[in-house]
Amino acid sequence: MRGAVLYGPQDIRFEERADPKILEPTDVILKLSATCVCGSDLWPYRGIDAPKEPTPMGHEYCGIVEEIGGAVKNIKRGQFVVGSFFASDNTCAICHAGYQSRCTHAQYVGAGGAQAPFLRVPLADGTLVATRDRPTDDEVPGLLAASDVLGTGWFGADAAAVGPGKTVAIVGDGAVGICAVLAAKQMGAERIIAMSRHPARQKLAREFGATDIVTERGDEGVAKIKELTAGLGAHSVIEAVGSQQAMMQAIRSTRPGGHVGFVGVSHGVELPGQELFYAEVHLHGGPAPVRRFLPQLLDLICSGKIDPGKVFDLTLPLDQVADGYRAMDERRAIKTLLRP
Amino acid sequence: MRGAVLYGPQDIRFEERADPKILEPTDVILKLSATCVCGSDLWPYRGIDAPKEPTPMGHEYCGIVEEIGGAVKNIKRGQFVVGSFFASDNTCAICHAGYQSRCTHAQYVGAGGAQAPFLRVPLADGTLVATRDRPTDDEVPGLLAASDVLGTGWFGADAAAVGPGKTVAIVGDGAVGICAVLAAKQMGAERIIAMSRHPARQKLAREFGATDIVTERGDEGVAKIKELTAGLGAHSVIEAVGSQQAMMQAIRSTRPGGHVGFVGVSHGVELPGQELFYAEVHLHGGPAPVRRFLPQLLDLICSGKIDPGKVFDLTLPLDQVADGYRAMDERRAIKTLLRP
Repeated sequence: MRGAVLYGPQDIRFEERADPKILEPTDVILKLSATCVCGSDLWPYRGIDAPKEPTPMGHEYCGIVEEIGGAVKNIKRGQFVVGSFFASDNTCAICHAGYQSRCTHAQYVGAGGAQAPFLRVPLADGTLVATRDRPTDDEVPGLLAASDVLGTGWFGADAAAVGPGKTVAIVGDGAVGICAVLAAKQMGAERIIAMSRHPARQKLAREFGATDIVTERGDEGVAKIKELTAGLGAHSVIEAVGSQQAMMQAIRSTRPGGHVGFVGVSHGVELPGQELFYAEVHLHGGPAPVRRFLPQLLDLICSGKIDPGKVFDLTLPLDQVADGYRAMDERRAIKTLLRP
Repeated sequence: MRGAVLYGPQDIRFEERADPKILEPTDVILKLSATCVCGSDLWPYRGIDAPKEPTPMGHEYCGIVEEIGGAVKNIKRGQFVVGSFFASDNTCAICHAGYQSRCTHAQYVGAGGAQAPFLRVPLADGTLVATRDRPTDDEVPGLLAASDVLGTGWFGADAAAVGPGKTVAIVGDGAVGICAVLAAKQMGAERIIAMSRHPARQKLAREFGATDIVTERGDEGVAKIKELTAGLGAHSVIEAVGSQQAMMQAIRSTRPGGHVGFVGVSHGVELPGQELFYAEVHLHGGPAPVRRFLPQLLDLICSGKIDPGKVFDLTLPLDQVADGYRAMDERRAIKTLLRP
């Protein structure tokens, strides 16, 4: 098969790779219906924490079960399934507590490179969730979104303790930030403030439930959130960038006793202990335990209650993956869907 | 009156100071029944973040209402009251959410210097909680403990989401850490691991409910907690020191999805964002909103269900306050109670 491989900064190649094989009896092989480019893929693409050798890319996936290992019990050949970027047994104490991304047997599914037509998924019974029916082509983008971008935005909102009556601010207008808006709306937030200066992203945020748009950043962004919240700060702030500026903006925009949910993959962040102490906010985040939310998200998507597939504003054939990266890098696209 | 004033490192003087007066109609003046030296007083005493000019010390107090301002409605002259180091109106949105230490009108009561016979307490109606009856001399130490050290340990346990069935570790064997053991016991924790290498503190921790003692620190302490928890880490870890080592020890001792409650006043701490991201713990702490817990704590103390007064293993007349600091600095005493 042919798949995406990152060779260096701005150097994504679509090239011949070995077909994935069953390595463990708990594995399955999926024939992917769709895959996509993640905001977190842009870090190494831009040369930050770049891999030292050519690396297969992609960790978001959904598709048809093509082959199953001998120990797979619940997942069946021919099912349409969605999974997270971390494979999990879904039986250990950490999984039971809802932190499947930190399962004691967690494996990074993206190691196999999901920007490809086929993908090996370890621990299939614990990792994958099947839809009841085979989705139509139109339903596939929404289901693909559940694999990471929606699941991550949802976790951000959950970690930020979003709930009815609350004012929520979202730092970051990438696809995860915009999905966090959708999550906040579903969780009953009263006021949802999207921080964005990009018209297309503002529009989608509004469509997903944002009640206010704030274009200011940094200290000015914080001041604006305070102004909108009687000087107190938001109850819940979701950080979906991963930079020092975004983290501090999130912490400073949150009222004492409020909650920061941070899901942007942290790059070069150092949090000042004393400021954090006196800020008196709750801080929680990390790689989203998407598996916890998948059954609920698949229900919401399949019943038409939410349409997170709208975050994909560019669809390309898989062999044009390099164009997909470029469009996101230049912020011409929010998120690129790739069709194998 | 005469009270304690810090002049510089190791230089506490007991000297003449102006008697406190009602400055605002919401103030009261207390005649203190007891006061004490806080672990956090040791930071400036040791020259860390030391004040630039002579500074009245002390922020823990209980006593009899001596004089009341014209706008005080609920607190009456002659009542025995306990309050926190932060005065709070107890009516604003932040107070209602249980974060009275960050009340929109918060004032630091310690500015008046509670290591003295009299103390001005602002926002008396919001700040002070009266006991039903006048306590006996024996009951005073426990009630004094509620003012900060117990309230802070309690908040640490609350912030660490301690509850039935959970394994809790406590980093720091000062009076706050030991009170956090008592709090964890009251909150139904199944296993309570006190980290201490000091026999007298270990003994009191056991008496308060510790089921295990770990003497190792740093990475070795973390390894020991992992060993005691099937490799996972504790559900809840309370940090009661405020140093970089203690914070990292707390974070690393917590399982993914678990909770760190940090109540040690942060000094020189920088938290690495990437490690925090992948640790996937909940982090919450700050100056304890003691007022939230005072009614419950006073009930527990007055009914004899808990005896936090045991943390005071040295009692001195107030004029020997300098000896009280010295004994704590040299770890000869866990906590010094001062009788005016």
